[in-house]
Amino acid sequence: MYRTEQDLLGFLDIPAEAYYGIHTARSRENFNITGIPVDREIIMSLALVKRAAALANMELGRLEGDKGGAIARAAAEVAEGNFMEQFSLDSIQGGAGTSINMNVNEVIANRAIELLGGQKGDYGIVSPNDHVNMAQSTNDVLPTAIHIALLNKTERLADSLGGLIEALGRKAEEFDGVVKTGRTHLQDAVPIRLGQEFSAYSAVMKRSLNRVTAAAGGLREINLGATAVGTGLNAGRRFSGLALEHLCAITGHRLFRAVDLVDATQNQDVLLELSGALRELAVMLSKIAGDLRLMSSGPRCGFGEMTLPEVQAGSSIMPGKINPVIPETVNQVCFQVLGNDLAVSLAMQAGQLELNVMSPVTVYNLVNSLHLLTNAIAAFDRRCVRGIKANAGRCGQLVEKSLGLLTALVPRIGYKEACSAAREAGERGDSPVEVLLRRNLLTREELAELLSPLGMTTPGGVEGDGGSLPAQPAEFQNIRHNSEVVK
Amino acid sequence: MYRTEQDLLGFLDIPAEAYYGIHTARSRENFNITGIPVDREIIMSLALVKRAAALANMELGRLEGDKGGAIARAAAEVAEGNFMEQFSLDSIQGGAGTSINMNVNEVIANRAIELLGGQKGDYGIVSPNDHVNMAQSTNDVLPTAIHIALLNKTERLADSLGGLIEALGRKAEEFDGVVKTGRTHLQDAVPIRLGQEFSAYSAVMKRSLNRVTAAAGGLREINLGATAVGTGLNAGRRFSGLALEHLCAITGHRLFRAVDLVDATQNQDVLLELSGALRELAVMLSKIAGDLRLMSSGPRCGFGEMTLPEVQAGSSIMPGKINPVIPETVNQVCFQVLGNDLAVSLAMQAGQLELNVMSPVTVYNLVNSLHLLTNAIAAFDRRCVRGIKANAGRCGQLVEKSLGLLTALVPRIGYKEACSAAREAGERGDSPVEVLLRRNLLTREELAELLSPLGMTTPGGVEGDGGSLPAQPAEFQNIRHNSEVVK
Amino acid sequence: MYRTEQDLLGFLDIPAEAYYGIHTARSRENFNITGIPVDREIIMSLALVKRAAALANMELGRLEGDKGGAIARAAAEVAEGNFMEQFSLDSIQGGAGTSINMNVNEVIANRAIELLGGQKGDYGIVSPNDHVNMAQSTNDVLPTAIHIALLNKTERLADSLGGLIEALGRKAEEFDGVVKTGRTHLQDAVPIRLGQEFSAYSAVMKRSLNRVTAAAGGLREINLGATAVGTGLNAGRRFSGLALEHLCAITGHRLFRAVDLVDATQNQDVLLELSGALRELAVMLSKIAGDLRLMSSGPRCGFGEMTLPEVQAGSSIMPGKINPVIPETVNQVCFQVLGNDLAVSLAMQAGQLELNVMSPVTVYNLVNSLHLLTNAIAAFDRRCVRGIKANAGRCGQLVEKSLGLLTALVPRIGYKEACSAAREAGERGDSPVEVLLRRNLLTREELAELLSPLGMTTPGGVEGDGGSLPAQPAEFQNIRHNSEVVK
Amino acid sequence: MYRTEQDLLGFLDIPAEAYYGIHTARSRENFNITGIPVDREIIMSLALVKRAAALANMELGRLEGDKGGAIARAAAEVAEGNFMEQFSLDSIQGGAGTSINMNVNEVIANRAIELLGGQKGDYGIVSPNDHVNMAQSTNDVLPTAIHIALLNKTERLADSLGGLIEALGRKAEEFDGVVKTGRTHLQDAVPIRLGQEFSAYSAVMKRSLNRVTAAAGGLREINLGATAVGTGLNAGRRFSGLALEHLCAITGHRLFRAVDLVDATQNQDVLLELSGALRELAVMLSKIAGDLRLMSSGPRCGFGEMTLPEVQAGSSIMPGKINPVIPETVNQVCFQVLGNDLAVSLAMQAGQLELNVMSPVTVYNLVNSLHLLTNAIAAFDRRCVRGIKANAGRCGQLVEKSLGLLTALVPRIGYKEACSAAREAGERGDSPVEVLLRRNLLTREELAELLSPLGMTTPGGVEGDGGSLPAQPAEFQNIRHNSEVVK
Repeated sequence: MYRTEQDLLGFLDIPAEAYYGIHTARSRENFNITGIPVDREIIMSLALVKRAAALANMELGRLEGDKGGAIARAAAEVAEGNFMEQFSLDSIQGGAGTSINMNVNEVIANRAIELLGGQKGDYGIVSPNDHVNMAQSTNDVLPTAIHIALLNKTERLADSLGGLIEALGRKAEEFDGVVKTGRTHLQDAVPIRLGQEFSAYSAVMKRSLNRVTAAAGGLREINLGATAVGTGLNAGRRFSGLALEHLCAITGHRLFRAVDLVDATQNQDVLLELSGALRELAVMLSKIAGDLRLMSSGPRCGFGEMTLPEVQAGSSIMPGKINPVIPETVNQVCFQVLGNDLAVSLAMQAGQLELNVMSPVTVYNLVNSLHLLTNAIAAFDRRCVRGIKANAGRCGQLVEKSLGLLTALVPRIGYKEACSAAREAGERGDSPVEVLLRRNLLTREELAELLSPLGMTTPGGVEGDGGSLPAQPAEFQNIRHNSEVVK
Repeated sequence: MYRTEQDLLGFLDIPAEAYYGIHTARSRENFNITGIPVDREIIMSLALVKRAAALANMELGRLEGDKGGAIARAAAEVAEGNFMEQFSLDSIQGGAGTSINMNVNEVIANRAIELLGGQKGDYGIVSPNDHVNMAQSTNDVLPTAIHIALLNKTERLADSLGGLIEALGRKAEEFDGVVKTGRTHLQDAVPIRLGQEFSAYSAVMKRSLNRVTAAAGGLREINLGATAVGTGLNAGRRFSGLALEHLCAITGHRLFRAVDLVDATQNQDVLLELSGALRELAVMLSKIAGDLRLMSSGPRCGFGEMTLPEVQAGSSIMPGKINPVIPETVNQVCFQVLGNDLAVSLAMQAGQLELNVMSPVTVYNLVNSLHLLTNAIAAFDRRCVRGIKANAGRCGQLVEKSLGLLTALVPRIGYKEACSAAREAGERGDSPVEVLLRRNLLTREELAELLSPLGMTTPGGVEGDGGSLPAQPAEFQNIRHNSEVVK
Repeated sequence: MYRTEQDLLGFLDIPAEAYYGIHTARSRENFNITGIPVDREIIMSLALVKRAAALANMELGRLEGDKGGAIARAAAEVAEGNFMEQFSLDSIQGGAGTSINMNVNEVIANRAIELLGGQKGDYGIVSPNDHVNMAQSTNDVLPTAIHIALLNKTERLADSLGGLIEALGRKAEEFDGVVKTGRTHLQDAVPIRLGQEFSAYSAVMKRSLNRVTAAAGGLREINLGATAVGTGLNAGRRFSGLALEHLCAITGHRLFRAVDLVDATQNQDVLLELSGALRELAVMLSKIAGDLRLMSSGPRCGFGEMTLPEVQAGSSIMPGKINPVIPETVNQVCFQVLGNDLAVSLAMQAGQLELNVMSPVTVYNLVNSLHLLTNAIAAFDRRCVRGIKANAGRCGQLVEKSLGLLTALVPRIGYKEACSAAREAGERGDSPVEVLLRRNLLTREELAELLSPLGMTTPGGVEGDGGSLPAQPAEFQNIRHNSEVVK
Repeated sequence: MYRTEQDLLGFLDIPAEAYYGIHTARSRENFNITGIPVDREIIMSLALVKRAAALANMELGRLEGDKGGAIARAAAEVAEGNFMEQFSLDSIQGGAGTSINMNVNEVIANRAIELLGGQKGDYGIVSPNDHVNMAQSTNDVLPTAIHIALLNKTERLADSLGGLIEALGRKAEEFDGVVKTGRTHLQDAVPIRLGQEFSAYSAVMKRSLNRVTAAAGGLREINLGATAVGTGLNAGRRFSGLALEHLCAITGHRLFRAVDLVDATQNQDVLLELSGALRELAVMLSKIAGDLRLMSSGPRCGFGEMTLPEVQAGSSIMPGKINPVIPETVNQVCFQVLGNDLAVSLAMQAGQLELNVMSPVTVYNLVNSLHLLTNAIAAFDRRCVRGIKANAGRCGQLVEKSLGLLTALVPRIGYKEACSAAREAGERGDSPVEVLLRRNLLTREELAELLSPLGMTTPGGVEGDGGSLPAQPAEFQNIRHNSEVVK
């Protein structure tokens, strides 16, 4: 059973029971690219925008109460996840998302018609363009919906990342007493405590989280009311303010209207900034995953300083092998996030004049990166970091024979003498202590004091002199260290 | 109902009816990242490898006939697409695909056990590791399967691209008489025929196809028999040759064993080369899509030299607007392919020692790029290029007033005089012909001859002098111009 | 004439007059890669760090006054740009910049020896390692110097970009009355004023500037006192605070010590963040340059809405041709900045354990991007934007015939009727007004009012309803809109 | 002393002694971006093109003998590297290189005027546009010159890379007897010989070289005769063939005229292909450098399997430390090449219609990548690879205790039993042999045979069964394995 609909291009038969209409039907034919439908949270957020717009239009007296009420109710139903099978458009599509907007307009219109007792397709009762889309353009409602969906997704990433930061912090405490050899250039360097390494991991992840949160703050700027090119044509003076007020109430997000709507419509730099923040997170996260793979290399022929939780057998051929599969997953996700970020930056630089029409691929990649990072970080936290065990004995053995110990003696014996001792130890296979004792440069007691693990690994210049250090001004700290700022 | 299985890490309950086993079950828990399962064609290709291996192992007398036969039959069933619900592992996973191999090993083992009248999980009858995986390692069978799947996908891309090349070629003929203004720097330049532009599009796409096909040729090099690190441990001397013979027969592909199996196991440069070829295709394709958007800009305030087929209404707010949604889709897919390619190159440079463990993300992106390009190119061909209409009248009007015409007179009147005429025409708004007649430099007849459209757009130096031109050697042509080479 | 120096590896002859020493000499041999020496501003900043360290070490009583004074004076001389011919090490080098630090240590040591009346090379008087490098490691002093140099360079970029923003703002005012057709998808859309477009350009550049400035703020966090791996070994408790105090005084920058020195030594995410901010600037800047090339396309066969200043002849063969060479330069610089940024992100993800040894290539690219952007933006401002002329007549003609005008009538006549009118106008080549009058839908007076240029291009929802709009909290504005924050 | 010159834009004073003219002077003002002048080899190659063109034009009777002779001689002088101080234009510039072409035209014209006894600037004698540039456009002569310069540079890279391949091959032989533990996922795997690893390095570098050489083959296709947009306007029928003949003779390169000159003028995909080949080389090279850093990690707390040549002291603070500075340089160069490659791909996708105006940045990056790789590979060869020493004793100790040995026993004792033995060994710290003897599964003699180093590291399936293996067809081998093909 079909009904016939008409548009600019002519007539088309639509399944009678379908809530979507002719625009959606054409678009389905046009875009068979990824096989991955537009993210549901964007559809649902767009329905919330439609609801807010209907409420505003009713208050402005432009939309009659029964129509407006039916639209608002239909929109709420979609926003709750109903009718999702009506939204199957491909994630990558031309037309800058017009089809997404029209799909939502059509489904809401037909559901509203149904609520008003009409037959689907009888757009004289409720029109997708004139009523559901009233005072709106794809170019303002879709970015608005995208911003809301991305805010939600960023919050979920923040939760996931927050868990990892906590886990790293707990490990920093747990491993605070494990002295090991530091390594620079993968070469033995001066000692460090494993806890200090985890503390650093925790610190850089906190900064990464702050960057993501700060970048997401830009999403609160909304161009609703801009209509097609930012000039607000057909929106009317009061629509934007009213609709945004409703939207804040409905979503619980603090949203603001962009100061320059032409700018906000043509420029999506806030999405690039978010992608950049995700990239920065991915790069630093990838480094941590790589470090864990290095330090757990072995078990017998590698660094062997820690053991990662065993989560599955490692090989179809090598018995007993266990691989660091979770950090490897993290690395791969990070590579994907960098690839996605490149796609975003390419889409972004292809903007022309009043609009960047490449937004579907931009959003597709941002959504993908947010999901991947959220999932991978949760797995990293729960299936890897929490269960790491330090091999303290092995760490201790290595640090003792490391020539890096000689550094601590340079202030006493000078760089040149220390080099000579290093050479001798290297050639004879001795430990640094053995060489120094042989040279009678220092007594065993002096060496014990100079080479005390805690002494060598405690930042020499930090304690006790804070008073003379220039203090960080509050606003600077806000930017760099306080993820609350843009909440 | 559950059965209990055991591995290195301990015991786990598996649904009694499941064909997959403990390794798959653990891996499902470990990797919830993309939500996109491993590409089915890879699973099916891996089953073909398992079948070939079983046949070889039977011939070598290492695998008893009933076991081997059951494995071969079970593998064939999987290769035909059965049991696909048993393969739900995530596309991005750690462990370099060991879980994919074990999933296939387990499903084939349990199906073979079933065929032999046993109970699933009774691996004493057929063992996933000892029998299905006999003489194999993930590190050789999975790359082999990936190569086969990518060869198939590349062939489908080649078909799709072949269609576009044909369509561009037909348009080149159709538009051969449409003289228009050439543009360099987006500024009016000397005349060109629209057919020449489409001919160039066709030519560059042919080269891009050749590059993809040539790069795919490298996929025919197979490391089967390498086992874990390329040394062939446990494969035995004759396994590799026999198995490959079977695999060629089963798949219909001409496959070769890599000369250096250690190299072929640790280096996946052939995948990077393929990704690079897809990138080159995407970049050049994107340029064509951009050109079509430029030339069809308008309809009234842009270049307006051609009209693209109307495939859907363009705006929810602007009546009558039609957008170039198909070329925009193509551009976005190209951006995605470049992003995917970056992820591939990052994964590739993360290889360490005997293996690149990042292959899952590499393959995920290659599969994605191949699918996206195949789909987008088909849409570009069928929903855009085939239906393009030239606006010959508009082209003619523009070319007539273009100052670029003056170039054709430079050999007669000199560059300096021509510049002066251009300035005068520019300031007074005259056509070039008007200025030249006013200056009495050339007669109307001379101008007509010098400015004949065909004369101005026919490569001056090409005809009639081929004899003196150094000929391209045959082997050079093979590489650059003949996509048949590596078929 | 040579003197002989010795290090770990043995003896080497050094030109007697050279201030550099054996480490520099070896490094010169090792690294002949780019041919581009390390940025001078980094060398000079490192000399300032050496001076600050010497002053601190003297105050701490670790460095005798005559030695310390000579070092401090020698360092000041280098910081003023003297002895620059002694610093010829290649920009891309292994060793994480140890050679840069040793080059500075050696030159300062030899100059100090000279000041104290000794012979160059007599390191018993002043030792590069024991005295000039006292309490320091490459891994803390070089990042400190890099931060200072990048802060300076970012300030110069901010000046350059500030000029462009001003120029764009002036053009926004100048062109405020020029109504033109808006374009989305390169297709004729609703009207907009050219001034609005320039205002949007100015707005996005301001945001980009804020991002760069905010990212540069992170450079103020300094890891001086961290020594080799962040544990502060050999620095002593009070060195870091004292040295930083001197450094603030010497450089005039407000610098802070990083809270976690292990973190600050191994993680250079602040450099990636800066690179990301430059990338975001480049992407948005590139879009503006592209827009100017589009709008100035022609002069006769393109959009022709504006004329860029003519800065050079455009062709060796086409007389009278002028090309948009400055925007093209800007686009190319932006591509380079994106390429540089990828190199930075690759270098960054290659960090391992206590140090990222790839910092030379990171810094090389950041320095390059800052220079390129500073230069290209200055040229864009002075040689292009300032001199742009609007072709108001042409803009007016185009807008009048654009079917985008019909959008303004949708609230009156409905989307469907407007589509039908658009079709008719399209088929018959009429202007929108002609069709509407023919259809008797609106009177000429109504049309004049509905289609008033100012009415159509004034954001409908902005004026008069600010009261109901949620206000942006101050701290949010700080982050997004106030470049002063981190000054 | 100045002379006055005139162009389209007006008059300008030029230093009287300058060989360059007004176009160059304007361009110098316009482009102050990188501070790096256009590559000299491109300038010299362009002079060769000018010489070939002059000879062809004389033969065609279009250029009088004295003028033509003077131009040809002046061009030869420039091609030999004279007057280089006259060519100071910036590498990144707008105008698609028109300024480079005009710079060469002007210098050759003025030198020719001088040779003919005239005064510089008296273009009535020899005109840069009408005579030196006769039958040419920037859009054909500059790409031609670029192709020639890149061919030369690629040959130098091939030489450098050839040296590395040889060095790797020699090490493969030298280390053929060093059995060590293989590692996958950085975890201990089955044994391998160090020589096999170097053999694999050599093999992948050979393939990379072949790709670069094959990609460079495309540079032999020349668009000379295309003039402005590929239509050959003003070139005449016979010019292209004659000029190319001369150019082949002059340069010694086998060059061919592109079949479709419109295509060859607008599409620079051959440059992208070359960049892609350099990227593939860089990625695989970077992996090798990383492996060397891993295997030489230590000396005491890392893998310690090899020692790299010591080329400089490693630290300003840590005595005796030596870092792998050469491999680190290689890694950084590879990152830069990937960044450069992104800039190339961005420039390439920005092509529009008849020309890609972003070619200056494309070429700048290709030139840079070729130089960097040539230099870094030479250093890698001479200062690192040649001097690597294997630590055979350490390798042997590690392999003996590695649990990877158990894999060799799986065909005998089954995967499950082997897993159990691995667990036991892991928990008790035993060697695999100890556990197996304790379990009485195999005798000491059986173990000795099964675990013989050579047996475990010799590809099991390779020897003796070549007869049954499908042979690689000759044309396939040509493409993949034979760098001679496109010479």
